[in-house]
Amino acid sequence: MARKKNDSKLKVISLGGLGEIGKNMTVLEYENDILVVDCGLGFPDDDMLGVDLVIPDVTYLEKNLDRVRGFVLTHGHEDHIGALPYVLKTVNAPVYGTRLTVGIVANKLAEHTFREKPQLNTVEAGEVVKLGVFSVEFIHVNHSIADACALAIKTPVGTVFFSGDFKLDLTPVDGQVMDIPRIGEIGNQGVTLLCCESTNVERPGYTPSEKKIGRSLDGILMQHPDNRVIIATFSSNVHRVQQIINASAAHGRKVAVTGRSMTNIVKTAIELGYMNVPDGTLIDINEIKRYKDNQLTIVTTGSQGEPMSALYRMAFSDHDKVELGPNDLVIISANPIPGNEKLVGRIINELYRKNVKVLYDALADVHVSGHACQEELKLMHALTKPKYFMPIHGEQRHLITHKKLAQEMGMPENHIFVSEIGKVLEIGRDSAKWNGMVPAGKVLVDGYGVGDVGNIVLRDRRHLAQDGLIVVVATVDIDERLILSGPDIVSRGFVYVRESEQLMDQVRGIAKQALTECLENGITDWTELKGHVKDDLSKFLYSKTKRKPMILPVVMNV
Amino acid sequence: MARKKNDSKLKVISLGGLGEIGKNMTVLEYENDILVVDCGLGFPDDDMLGVDLVIPDVTYLEKNLDRVRGFVLTHGHEDHIGALPYVLKTVNAPVYGTRLTVGIVANKLAEHTFREKPQLNTVEAGEVVKLGVFSVEFIHVNHSIADACALAIKTPVGTVFFSGDFKLDLTPVDGQVMDIPRIGEIGNQGVTLLCCESTNVERPGYTPSEKKIGRSLDGILMQHPDNRVIIATFSSNVHRVQQIINASAAHGRKVAVTGRSMTNIVKTAIELGYMNVPDGTLIDINEIKRYKDNQLTIVTTGSQGEPMSALYRMAFSDHDKVELGPNDLVIISANPIPGNEKLVGRIINELYRKNVKVLYDALADVHVSGHACQEELKLMHALTKPKYFMPIHGEQRHLITHKKLAQEMGMPENHIFVSEIGKVLEIGRDSAKWNGMVPAGKVLVDGYGVGDVGNIVLRDRRHLAQDGLIVVVATVDIDERLILSGPDIVSRGFVYVRESEQLMDQVRGIAKQALTECLENGITDWTELKGHVKDDLSKFLYSKTKRKPMILPVVMNV
Repeated sequence: MARKKNDSKLKVISLGGLGEIGKNMTVLEYENDILVVDCGLGFPDDDMLGVDLVIPDVTYLEKNLDRVRGFVLTHGHEDHIGALPYVLKTVNAPVYGTRLTVGIVANKLAEHTFREKPQLNTVEAGEVVKLGVFSVEFIHVNHSIADACALAIKTPVGTVFFSGDFKLDLTPVDGQVMDIPRIGEIGNQGVTLLCCESTNVERPGYTPSEKKIGRSLDGILMQHPDNRVIIATFSSNVHRVQQIINASAAHGRKVAVTGRSMTNIVKTAIELGYMNVPDGTLIDINEIKRYKDNQLTIVTTGSQGEPMSALYRMAFSDHDKVELGPNDLVIISANPIPGNEKLVGRIINELYRKNVKVLYDALADVHVSGHACQEELKLMHALTKPKYFMPIHGEQRHLITHKKLAQEMGMPENHIFVSEIGKVLEIGRDSAKWNGMVPAGKVLVDGYGVGDVGNIVLRDRRHLAQDGLIVVVATVDIDERLILSGPDIVSRGFVYVRESEQLMDQVRGIAKQALTECLENGITDWTELKGHVKDDLSKFLYSKTKRKPMILPVVMNV
Repeated sequence: MARKKNDSKLKVISLGGLGEIGKNMTVLEYENDILVVDCGLGFPDDDMLGVDLVIPDVTYLEKNLDRVRGFVLTHGHEDHIGALPYVLKTVNAPVYGTRLTVGIVANKLAEHTFREKPQLNTVEAGEVVKLGVFSVEFIHVNHSIADACALAIKTPVGTVFFSGDFKLDLTPVDGQVMDIPRIGEIGNQGVTLLCCESTNVERPGYTPSEKKIGRSLDGILMQHPDNRVIIATFSSNVHRVQQIINASAAHGRKVAVTGRSMTNIVKTAIELGYMNVPDGTLIDINEIKRYKDNQLTIVTTGSQGEPMSALYRMAFSDHDKVELGPNDLVIISANPIPGNEKLVGRIINELYRKNVKVLYDALADVHVSGHACQEELKLMHALTKPKYFMPIHGEQRHLITHKKLAQEMGMPENHIFVSEIGKVLEIGRDSAKWNGMVPAGKVLVDGYGVGDVGNIVLRDRRHLAQDGLIVVVATVDIDERLILSGPDIVSRGFVYVRESEQLMDQVRGIAKQALTECLENGITDWTELKGHVKDDLSKFLYSKTKRKPMILPVVMNV
C-alpha cells in the first residue's frame, strides 16, 4: 500500500485562466480527492454577440462530483469568484475564503436559487483548512481588493503554491504588508509547484503603492476647493474607496455613494469592518441637495465606461440624483481594461461636452494597478524557490513572457509548464509531465440561458449583425405547381427599404422566378426549392450591393 | 463696393474630424469661393455593425458645387484622403497635393469609376496654389508618411494656417526637417487663425525621432543573426520601410514585401523616388524559399491586427508564401490604434502559440508616433502666433486639452474656438464668432452602398446581433377566419434549436393561440394581428430566457 501511495501523482488542471483573461479556475486532484482553486467568470469577446458572461466548462467536476472536497478562493474579484453561482448549482461543494471574499460571494448567491444551500466558510489569513488529502494555508497578500490571499496547499507530493492576484505594497492602506516572512518560510520548506499570476508580467519594475493615490487625491482636492468632486472607481477596491473617504473628510466633505455594486460593496465592507468611516461622513445620495458643491464627494461606479453605470448615466444626463455641470470635477480612478478604452473615452468626451472638468490616467496620477510587475513577480519566485513553475492568469503572451522571466532567474526550461485549459500536468515526488486532457472550454451565459448559446447561434448572430436578413415568404400548392400567394419580402438590417424600393422589387422578381422555375421543373423537395431561391438571391444581392444578408426562404404548402 | 468687401467674412466649417478621430475635412468659404482642406475617411464605431467605412456628409458642398474651387491635401493618410473616391463622384473639383499624396490618391481612384475624370495636380512643398480668392502655400512638415505638408492659406481676412498632421523630427530619415523658418516667417507676417491637429495633445514632452527606430532595428537584427525576421508596420510609413530596408541590407538580408497595400505603396514610393533601395535588396515574395532564414527580412501589413491582413494570415497558418516557425522573429512596428488592442493581442498570442519570437511596443522600442506631443504643439503655436485658434483632429477630450494648452501659452479663452462638425466659425478682419450650422454628419459605406445604411438599419442589426430573431409564418383565410397552414417557427441566432425543442413548441403554441384569438375576435387588420402575435411571444420569451429576440410575424392571406 505504501508503495502504491508513493506512485500516485498530483494532477494540476486549469479549467480557465490560461490563454485568456478571466475565468480563473484550477483543479488539484490526488487519488480520491479533488480541490478547486477559484471559480471565476470571464467577459465575452467582441465576437460573442449578445453574450453576458463566460464561465468555465466544469463537466470534469460534474463527472467527479463525489470527489470534490471544496472550493478555496483567493479573493473576491469576479474573475475569481464570479462563476460560483452557476457552478455551485451542479457542483455543490463547500466554499472557503476570507471574510470579505465570502461576504461578496454571499451577496452574489442571494440573487440565485439553489436546490441545496451552498456552504460558505470563512477563514482568516494564517489559517489552514483540511480538505481530503489537501491542507490549504491562506496567506495574506496585497491586491486591489482587501482580504486577498495566496494559498500554500500541502499535497502528498509536496507543496503547491498559488500566488493569487497580488502586488507588493510596502505601505498598504490597511497597514498589512504581504506576508513575506511566511512565504519565505514555506519556500525554505520546499515548494514543488508555483502557480503564479501573470497579468503585469510585461511591465518592468514595481507597481506603486495604493497610498500614492491617497496623496494624489489629497492634492487634487486641495487644488479644487470650490468644485463638487465625483470619483469613479472599481467598487471592489475597498482601500481606494477608504482613501477617497479619508481625503474627503480631511477636506470637510461628505461622501455619497451611487451605483448598485458600489452601494452593495461599501455596505458589506463597513459591516465586516473593512472600512472605517468617520462619523457623519457618509450621506445618502438623496441628501446631496442639502450640501454645497465644496462639501461633497460622490463615489460612483462606471470607471470602465460601462453603459448604464451610474457615471455613464450622469454623463448622458440620465442619472436621477446627480446632474453634472461646469462646477463639477470628475475623477476616473481606474485604467481602462483592454477593450474598454473606447467606452471610457465616450464618457470622457461627453463630460467635456458638458464643460465638466475631468481627470483620468492620461492627465493625473489617479490609479495604480493591483498586480505585480516584473520585479515583484521575481520576488515571488525568489521567496517560493519552486521546483516546477506553471504561469497562470494570462493570455499566451503573458504566460510565455512569464516563462522567460523564470528562465532569467535560472529555472531550467523543462521545469516550466505553460499549460492550456483542460491540459493535465501530472506531478510526482520527483517528476512533472503532461498527461492528456480533460474536457474544458467556455460556457456562454445569455440572460437565463447557460450554455444554450454556442457556435451556431453566434455564427448566425454575426451574420445577421454584418448584413441583416431577408425573409422570402410564399404559399404554394405543390401538387398543382402553383404559387398561391407571395413571394413577399421582409428585410431587416439590410438596407433602408423606403429608399430601395427598386431593389426590393427586383428581389421579389428574382424570388418569384426561382420559385416558378422550380415548380415548373417539378422540383418539390423543400430543401432543394429553398436552396434555389437562396442561391439566386444571394448572387443577385452580392453583385448589386457587395453584401451577403442572411436569406430565409419560408415556403408553405396549402 | 470696397466697403462691402471689407464686411465680408471668412467661414470656417469642418465637415469631419471634430469630436471624432478621422474623416478630417475642413471647408473655407469666402464670398463666391469655397476651398476644401483634406477629405478623409473614418472607421466605424463598434456599434456600426457591418459598416466598412465612414465618410463625411458633403451635402453642403453639393449644394454649392459651382463655388468649390478645389481640394488641397496635407498628406496621403486615409483619414485625410480616403473619402475622395466617394466625394469626387458628386463634387468633382481639382485636387492638389504633393507627389506622394497624389500618387496614393491616384491608386485609390483607379479602383472606382467616375463620370468625369478627377483632376489631380501635383505641387511641391514651397509652392503656392491660387484657388479663387485663396492662395495656398504648401509647407514641409515631418509625419509618419513622406511628403506631408502644413498649409498656409492667404484669405482676404488674413492667413489661416493648417498644421496638418505633424511632428518635429530633427533627424528625419530623409534629412528634411519641418520647415521651421518658413512657418516662423508666416507667423511674423501674421496668422489670423491656426487650425492645429490634436492627436497627441494628452502626451507631455516630445515625440522621438523616426531615426530611433532605425537604431533599434539595427540592434535587434544584430541580436538575432540566425532568425528570419518579419516586420509588420503601416504600409504608408515609407520612411519606416526605408529604415527596415537599410538595416536589413546592412546585415546582409534581402527584403521581401507582402500584403496588398504594402506592395502597392512600396511600388509607388520607389517609382516616385521616395525610397532608395540598394540594388538587389528587394526580392519577390515568391523567391524567399531560395534564401536562408538569416538572409531574409519580410515586410508585411497587419500591424493593427487586421483580420485577413498578411500578418494575420501568417499567424493563423493561412498565408500561401510564409509559414512561421520557431526560427522566426516577428516585430510589430506600430502601436495599436485605440480599439485595435484586442485584434493585435490575438495575433501576438497566436504567434507565441507557434513558438515564434515576438517583439512589440510593450517589450521593445519598435515604434514612434507621427504626431506632435505637447511641447511640439506649443512650438507650432509659438511659431505661428495666431490671433484665433481652432483645435482640430480629435475627440472632445483632445480638443479641450488642446484649448487648455493654448490658454497656458497665454491665448485668451475667447480667441479659442472648440467647434463641432457643421458649425460655422465666421472670421472678419478683427472678429471671430459662431454663426449657425450647415448640414454635416456621417455617411456610412457598406459594400457598394454609400448612405443606404442609417440608424434604422443599424438599430435592427444591433437587435439581431444581441438576441437573434424568430420568424412566425402562417397562412390564413381571413374571410373564413381560418388558419390554413402554420404557424411555422424559424429562429436564427436565438437559441440552439435542437436542444430547445420544448421551448420552440411552446413558441408555436403561443403564436397559434394569439392568431386564433385574433381571428375569433374578428381582428382582421394585419398590423393589429401581427402586433398581438409579437407582444404575446415577446412577453413569453423574456420571462423564459431574459432575451428579446426580434420577432417577425409573416401572415399571408390566401
